Amino acid sequence: MSSVYRKIKGGITAPKGFVSSAVTAGVKDPEATRLDLALIASQEECVAAGTFTTNRVKAAPVKVSQTHLRDGDVRAILVNSGNANACTGVNGLQDARTCTRLVGKLLDLKQSQVAICSTGVIGLPMPMVRIEPKFDELVNGLKRGEGTSVAQAIMTSDTCHKEISVSLEIDGVKVKIGACAKGAGMINPYMATMLCFVTTDAKINKGVLSSFVSHAVEFSFNRITIDGDMSTNDSVIMLANGASGGKAIRRGTKDAKKFQAALNYVMLEMAKSLVKDGERVTKFVTVNVKGAKSYNDAKKVAEAVANSSLVKCSWNGNDPNWGRIIHAVGYSKAMVKEELIDIHIGGLAACLGGMEAEVSMDALRKKVAGDAFTIEINLNLCEGEYTIYSSDLSPEYVDFNRSEYAYWKQARKDGLTQQ
Amino acid sequence: MSSVYRKIKGGITAPKGFVSSAVTAGVKDPEATRLDLALIASQEECVAAGTFTTNRVKAAPVKVSQTHLRDGDVRAILVNSGNANACTGVNGLQDARTCTRLVGKLLDLKQSQVAICSTGVIGLPMPMVRIEPKFDELVNGLKRGEGTSVAQAIMTSDTCHKEISVSLEIDGVKVKIGACAKGAGMINPYMATMLCFVTTDAKINKGVLSSFVSHAVEFSFNRITIDGDMSTNDSVIMLANGASGGKAIRRGTKDAKKFQAALNYVMLEMAKSLVKDGERVTKFVTVNVKGAKSYNDAKKVAEAVANSSLVKCSWNGNDPNWGRIIHAVGYSKAMVKEELIDIHIGGLAACLGGMEAEVSMDALRKKVAGDAFTIEINLNLCEGEYTIYSSDLSPEYVDFNRSEYAYWKQARKDGLTQQ
Repeated sequence: MSSVYRKIKGGITAPKGFVSSAVTAGVKDPEATRLDLALIASQEECVAAGTFTTNRVKAAPVKVSQTHLRDGDVRAILVNSGNANACTGVNGLQDARTCTRLVGKLLDLKQSQVAICSTGVIGLPMPMVRIEPKFDELVNGLKRGEGTSVAQAIMTSDTCHKEISVSLEIDGVKVKIGACAKGAGMINPYMATMLCFVTTDAKINKGVLSSFVSHAVEFSFNRITIDGDMSTNDSVIMLANGASGGKAIRRGTKDAKKFQAALNYVMLEMAKSLVKDGERVTKFVTVNVKGAKSYNDAKKVAEAVANSSLVKCSWNGNDPNWGRIIHAVGYSKAMVKEELIDIHIGGLAACLGGMEAEVSMDALRKKVAGDAFTIEINLNLCEGEYTIYSSDLSPEYVDFNRSEYAYWKQARKDGLTQQ
Repeated sequence: MSSVYRKIKGGITAPKGFVSSAVTAGVKDPEATRLDLALIASQEECVAAGTFTTNRVKAAPVKVSQTHLRDGDVRAILVNSGNANACTGVNGLQDARTCTRLVGKLLDLKQSQVAICSTGVIGLPMPMVRIEPKFDELVNGLKRGEGTSVAQAIMTSDTCHKEISVSLEIDGVKVKIGACAKGAGMINPYMATMLCFVTTDAKINKGVLSSFVSHAVEFSFNRITIDGDMSTNDSVIMLANGASGGKAIRRGTKDAKKFQAALNYVMLEMAKSLVKDGERVTKFVTVNVKGAKSYNDAKKVAEAVANSSLVKCSWNGNDPNWGRIIHAVGYSKAMVKEELIDIHIGGLAACLGGMEAEVSMDALRKKVAGDAFTIEINLNLCEGEYTIYSSDLSPEYVDFNRSEYAYWKQARKDGLTQQ
């Protein structure tokens, strides 16, 4: 598929007509100097679509953005890191609305044309006294070629920023897709503390864009897992402004297929980069299940294996422990026949017909010792197949996640992050 | 309820007519000197009931014991630690059957009267050359008062043996219940690498005993979780020989209620002791969910919270992070209204109406810093309630579980544990 698009530079401002800006507001820590407040906007009218966390506890910005995407013509996305604005009640909702109203005013847009996203600690009020005064600088700073600073501003425990852009031809016209994302902890299928923004200058109507986004998310972000947790704030928002000048992409056409493939590629690359940069992750593991009774059964098996703490611990220890893999297969609730299960690790048979394969332990261990490897599980029943992208579980992950809330709450009490 | 029974000494040989024996067979390591092969038997005829792992990949001894419990009149239980005899195919089944046949012969019982359990590494063949020669010593060693040695022989990564016995009066006759158990890793609701043997000299017919066991397991072992994994070998087997001399306990009577309560207590004590001795566990956490729309919804919430890696990490770090708890509540798939959720930690309100409660962080932190505390989650919707017993997740747990299979397989190749 790589022939249909070409990787280019520029991230979310690579597509025509998109501008961005990022500033330092000190959201989490007033003394910090890192970028933590960003804005993406289309210079022309555009259509927008998004998918959000399925967690029933949703952050205030998620609720606000869902409404704006449904009812408004979203043209801008405001985003902060350092505070999730989740479990903050009526005040949190009010804060999110105030942000969209103020930024909308400065952009000469309606409040409902501004989407908003937040990522960071749950349960603390937004430091509006530090955020509001930055809106002028943010809006005045909007320009082309600044995509990377947005990718940087949305980072939390990420160790590197993530962005990608590609160009492809649709009906003889060159169109571009740009994206940036952040991940780190709480990454799980069904969306996580994960933000991804995608822009394109292709012309696409709202209904078609929604279906492009849903398909691409199902194919990418819903197939990654780091720790089996799911955040209150996950959001994928895509803007399409048609600035490339081509005709609208119509559903079911060859062009639609081509665009969908490119978008899937963009989102899958972003999704994989989140796993690779997961909190204290040392391995990128592809779990591929085939031969299941159904697609859903294959998915159940892949999720059980990719989320098993014991399996993930063994990967961290370079241990090709297929026994733990098969025990997770067994409790996945999928239909399996033990005596038919084959497990290959990095292409080498570790388990055949539910039993230990004749294989060199050194060779198997070498596979698991790599930075990236594939676990292939064949149930040998029918045609159901599913792939999930996962990671190991390290002692450092646990250590890293032992304390967060108490520290910040205490810091706030101590006046360190006082509003 | 504590008034209906009295704690006594003796474990599984406290009830009349039960004998036991334990020897060193070197199942995992021929050089080791610890007890690893044990036998429990009733000197009189008895009835038996059991519940087993719901994992679809079942160890050979589980398959054999299920058949014997269904078709035979089980009077003895053979058990080894050090090898799970799981994923060992036809040879593994043959090995398990051979064990029951040989021990049955020595006991003058039919093969189908001997149940068998194994716990240890998955995927390695049973070292029959070391086990078979020990059966004579094992059977000759059977005696009263040896319950503790069985509790010791079934340990794997357990740091202490677990046993309990109680006496109670049924219809004017003193009856006793004894139990021993092992746990450590792979502990999860729906059974784990967990073995529990229970004996009683009460007179109970097979159908009634089955229902006693099912109820008690649902109330105890199915409510504990350490790492969310589920083993291939879990077994709870109970023997009742009527040696106390009383009349049979009939279903639905006051005596049945009394006996059930005592059995629930015995199994819950064993289950809790497994959590407390979980691999590298530092805290015992009771997660109590109330106010749910239904029993099943309460269960979903309790399981989501008790199995969340991020929640368990925060407990390990003495972090009263209610934000992570509420995010797990949100993705549990239970019906919840964010604005109604209250969370108390150790009796102190941490979250009220879905938002941060006014509370001293030091006081909250002190609660989580304890060895044992309760998380109470009130959804404030209806009457559904469920309790689960859980633990923290420590960096040491991950480190402990990083490598096992490769080590032993290599050791076997090197001749260290050659059969």
